[in-house]
Amino acid sequence: MSGYTVAVVGATGAVGTKMKEMLESSTLPIKGIKFLASKRSAGKEITFKEETYIIEELTSEAFLGTDIALFSAGGSISQEFAPEAVKRGCVVIDNTSAFRMDEEVPLVVPEVNPHHLNDHKGIIANPNCSTIQMMVALEPLRQAYGLNRIIVSTYQAVSGAGVSAINELKQQATDMLAGKEEIEANILPCSGDKKHYPLAFNALPQIDVFGEDGYTQEEWKMINETKKIMSDESMSVSATCVRVPVMSGHSESIYIELEKEGVKVSDIQEILKTSHGIVLEDNPKEQLYPQPLTAVGKKEVFVGRIRRDLDVSTGFHMWVVSDNLLKGAAWNSVQIAEKLHEMNLVKVSR
Amino acid sequence: MSGYTVAVVGATGAVGTKMKEMLESSTLPIKGIKFLASKRSAGKEITFKEETYIIEELTSEAFLGTDIALFSAGGSISQEFAPEAVKRGCVVIDNTSAFRMDEEVPLVVPEVNPHHLNDHKGIIANPNCSTIQMMVALEPLRQAYGLNRIIVSTYQAVSGAGVSAINELKQQATDMLAGKEEIEANILPCSGDKKHYPLAFNALPQIDVFGEDGYTQEEWKMINETKKIMSDESMSVSATCVRVPVMSGHSESIYIELEKEGVKVSDIQEILKTSHGIVLEDNPKEQLYPQPLTAVGKKEVFVGRIRRDLDVSTGFHMWVVSDNLLKGAAWNSVQIAEKLHEMNLVKVSR
Repeated sequence: MSGYTVAVVGATGAVGTKMKEMLESSTLPIKGIKFLASKRSAGKEITFKEETYIIEELTSEAFLGTDIALFSAGGSISQEFAPEAVKRGCVVIDNTSAFRMDEEVPLVVPEVNPHHLNDHKGIIANPNCSTIQMMVALEPLRQAYGLNRIIVSTYQAVSGAGVSAINELKQQATDMLAGKEEIEANILPCSGDKKHYPLAFNALPQIDVFGEDGYTQEEWKMINETKKIMSDESMSVSATCVRVPVMSGHSESIYIELEKEGVKVSDIQEILKTSHGIVLEDNPKEQLYPQPLTAVGKKEVFVGRIRRDLDVSTGFHMWVVSDNLLKGAAWNSVQIAEKLHEMNLVKVSR
Repeated sequence: MSGYTVAVVGATGAVGTKMKEMLESSTLPIKGIKFLASKRSAGKEITFKEETYIIEELTSEAFLGTDIALFSAGGSISQEFAPEAVKRGCVVIDNTSAFRMDEEVPLVVPEVNPHHLNDHKGIIANPNCSTIQMMVALEPLRQAYGLNRIIVSTYQAVSGAGVSAINELKQQATDMLAGKEEIEANILPCSGDKKHYPLAFNALPQIDVFGEDGYTQEEWKMINETKKIMSDESMSVSATCVRVPVMSGHSESIYIELEKEGVKVSDIQEILKTSHGIVLEDNPKEQLYPQPLTAVGKKEVFVGRIRRDLDVSTGFHMWVVSDNLLKGAAWNSVQIAEKLHEMNLVKVSR
């Protein structure tokens, strides 16, 4: 076999653009690639590894002869076309929330639960951006010491809401700096919700729509996906998800309670330092800690500010940052493709 | 007695400017006012209640004939001049951290522990901005149900770091929006520390310098001041303090554990709705929740996103926002002055 034919669905979006970049530098053997998008984008040119491709219209038939499809064009597109792609012999790695909680669909962070890929039935879900980086940071500690509880407050970047949201933040910031009184807001905090508020020089405690019990869907995603990825329904998880005026790079203030007593900060640092996909940036004396601006463009999850809770003997606090478009989305998806290849789990149609 | 002579020390700073405004609309009977500052600012004109005053140089003698002095010119100025002012018969309300943990000095949030004012020996400390708003939100719940534990992650505005930090953020944001590669950082995250990082479109998990155990001084302030204000050394408090690119208005993601079992979200809402100094903004269906941009310029503490923890029966999460220059600093100081007057605790020198 000389390689796979790969399709990228939604290649012009904030995540799709990064998927293309991640595929360009991927170890995945690619023999062919196609870019699929809505009628609106079809016909446009796109460059991949210095060659020019024409974006094709997304149809079910477009997946004929395709081995792996990366989807990032919204939940309804995935819902409609992912099963069609699978029917045509394609393995789908879906970056939307459409199938994440589907019992038949593995939800995978390659550093954490690659073994879940063995059970795939054609669709593999890429977890929510804010969940992924938390899983990468916490799984090594769960393995070493057991993990009973997670309380997380997020500081999420606008790029998670797409290119139009990035542009809206830029325009709002420009207008505010110019002293304009009327600041336009048409997208954030959530394009599908009724009211919109400025994010520039603000903080909005709403990501996605509100669900049950006063939690937002984003918060439920972090809670439910964590339990699924860690295969632990009894894990205590709670989340407060907040959008901040950062372009890219999600930050998380995480509190955990370990099962084991007597763990030291230096033990945690030692484990994370040698864990795959993690960069330890934890030296208060040198003011070294993760920041969104320094994490952007990198594939790793950055962890710092690790310190003991002052009251609970098994409790620790930490600060976790990663590029939400890369490890939180595009890179994790491409990493899943690489892992599928490595584990010989791509069903090739020919 | 026809009123007090009031001095404002550091009247040209971010907080000092707001102290002047708060005094202009205060119910405190003011018969005279003076504005004191460093030699650099002395001689400049300042307007109070439509009258022009000349800023005087800060000296010990300047407090002769002054009844109440509001200090906000940095810890070392307070350390040097507050005792001198007290010697000259003046009651000092100090907005710096110089005396906050001094056993002889009451640390007061008027909604929470006005009775501590009875013991004052001349100096009363105004708590840290991020502590004050948390105390206002939590004290009514502590009174009603008992409070065992607080875990807080902050989203703090730049104005807490002064006028020069506000200007630095504006310049950085302007430069970034213009696509500049080199972003200058000379003040934030902490002017007294070695390294400086851009805050624009970033999040910095450092406020003030690092202290013991990997916690910053700002985090220690929240922890220690909470215990002092609530007179409860056994209270479990931990904090992660983060600076975000917001001009004014601190936000806090707070997790609490109550002592009492069986409390409902609606019980908490009912109590906060009728508590002094609090505005309940908590209606997820209407996307109503506190935001820094809508809290700015207001004296109250805004509370929303109140919801049950999903695992601990006595646990609740909430989102608390307030203007850090007003309730977090200037307004709380002026409120202390009003309370001292009300309780007849201003020693008048003549």
